[in-house]
Amino acid sequence: MEISARNQFRGRVTAVRKGNIMAEVEVQLDVPPTVLAAITKSSVERLALAEGDEVTVIIKSTEVLIGK
Amino acid sequence: MEISARNQFRGRVTAVRKGNIMAEVEVQLDVPPTVLAAITKSSVERLALAEGDEVTVIIKSTEVLIGK
Amino acid sequence: MEISARNQFRGRVTAVRKGNIMAEVEVQLDVPPTVLAAITKSSVERLALAEGDEVTVIIKSTEVLIGK
Amino acid sequence: MEISARNQFRGRVTAVRKGNIMAEVEVQLDVPPTVLAAITKSSVERLALAEGDEVTVIIKSTEVLIGK
Amino acid sequence: MEISARNQFRGRVTAVRKGNIMAEVEVQLDVPPTVLAAITKSSVERLALAEGDEVTVIIKSTEVLIGK
Amino acid sequence: MEISARNQFRGRVTAVRKGNIMAEVEVQLDVPPTVLAAITKSSVERLALAEGDEVTVIIKSTEVLIGK
Repeated sequence: MEISARNQFRGRVTAVRKGNIMAEVEVQLDVPPTVLAAITKSSVERLALAEGDEVTVIIKSTEVLIGK
Repeated sequence: MEISARNQFRGRVTAVRKGNIMAEVEVQLDVPPTVLAAITKSSVERLALAEGDEVTVIIKSTEVLIGK
Repeated sequence: MEISARNQFRGRVTAVRKGNIMAEVEVQLDVPPTVLAAITKSSVERLALAEGDEVTVIIKSTEVLIGK
Repeated sequence: MEISARNQFRGRVTAVRKGNIMAEVEVQLDVPPTVLAAITKSSVERLALAEGDEVTVIIKSTEVLIGK
Repeated sequence: MEISARNQFRGRVTAVRKGNIMAEVEVQLDVPPTVLAAITKSSVERLALAEGDEVTVIIKSTEVLIGK
Repeated sequence: MEISARNQFRGRVTAVRKGNIMAEVEVQLDVPPTVLAAITKSSVERLALAEGDEVTVIIKSTEVLIGK
């Protein structure tokens, strides 16, 4: 499946921190920047996300702000 | 001003495409990936965004999806 | 690729309306409701979205409001 | 009050799971799909959301992604 | 209908600018700040939004950033 | 740094409630309305947000809904 979101980057999960409902997933992209995602804990479990997993970070362009 | 959004990356504007209400801004990060932002045309004009500008791409972590 | 977003529904594109930057895509789900997506025109073109295409509608749970 | 969001579906709450700050609300729409919403726990309490409640699921079209 | 979004403010529409797909609606709240909403043109037309209309601005708390 | 988001209001933090992953920050704007932000706990800690802090509430216009 190809996704409409314009921003999609390959990376590797470097940390998963679970709360009760939400969870944080840290992804080290193939190039330096690390991206932080706050997703539901149930999604972390459904995808069985764990450190070392190769994943794609997906960000819809309407969600991006610019600072100058 | 420091912003709460966890994902903030420095880059350079490589393209600005204006519609009537919305506009697309392409930002080449300091490391390879290029990020696309869809923001209002009025914000492009208020910040006077143009190719070559050094900017910060800002993405709140709750807006990020993970694909695996 | 499996996506972290909890809400994913199969459907068929019933209309594509393009503006300059944004576009509207109407998707008739396999069961009655029709979902409207506002995505960039460039995504419509990259995926070559057209009426009749079978697609998946993806909605992150943090983007959903409840009215009662 | 009528809401600008283009996607509004009637359904019934089938589960409410509360964390410290966030909560998950599962809504079974009148037709099969079940939608998951991650909203603040304080909103769950302000609306007194409980299993069996008839609610409306509201999703702004700019928040919808398409997979093909 | 009561909405789960924690931020809801009464105001009056002071400007409506329509593009092809998106539209901007400017709302002067009952107290000074003016809020800008970018919604689809079809929503502007469905609600028949016009200058002088009394409306409610609705913002989900997960969409708010803090700068310090 | 100037931010592209069209809605930016000055205020003062009146409450910070931390969960495991998410946190709620209540901001009393200079004029009456109080805005609620749900951001990650790690952002609260990175900015050292506390009651009495002067902050800016930032909301991208594409995230705003209108009720009429």
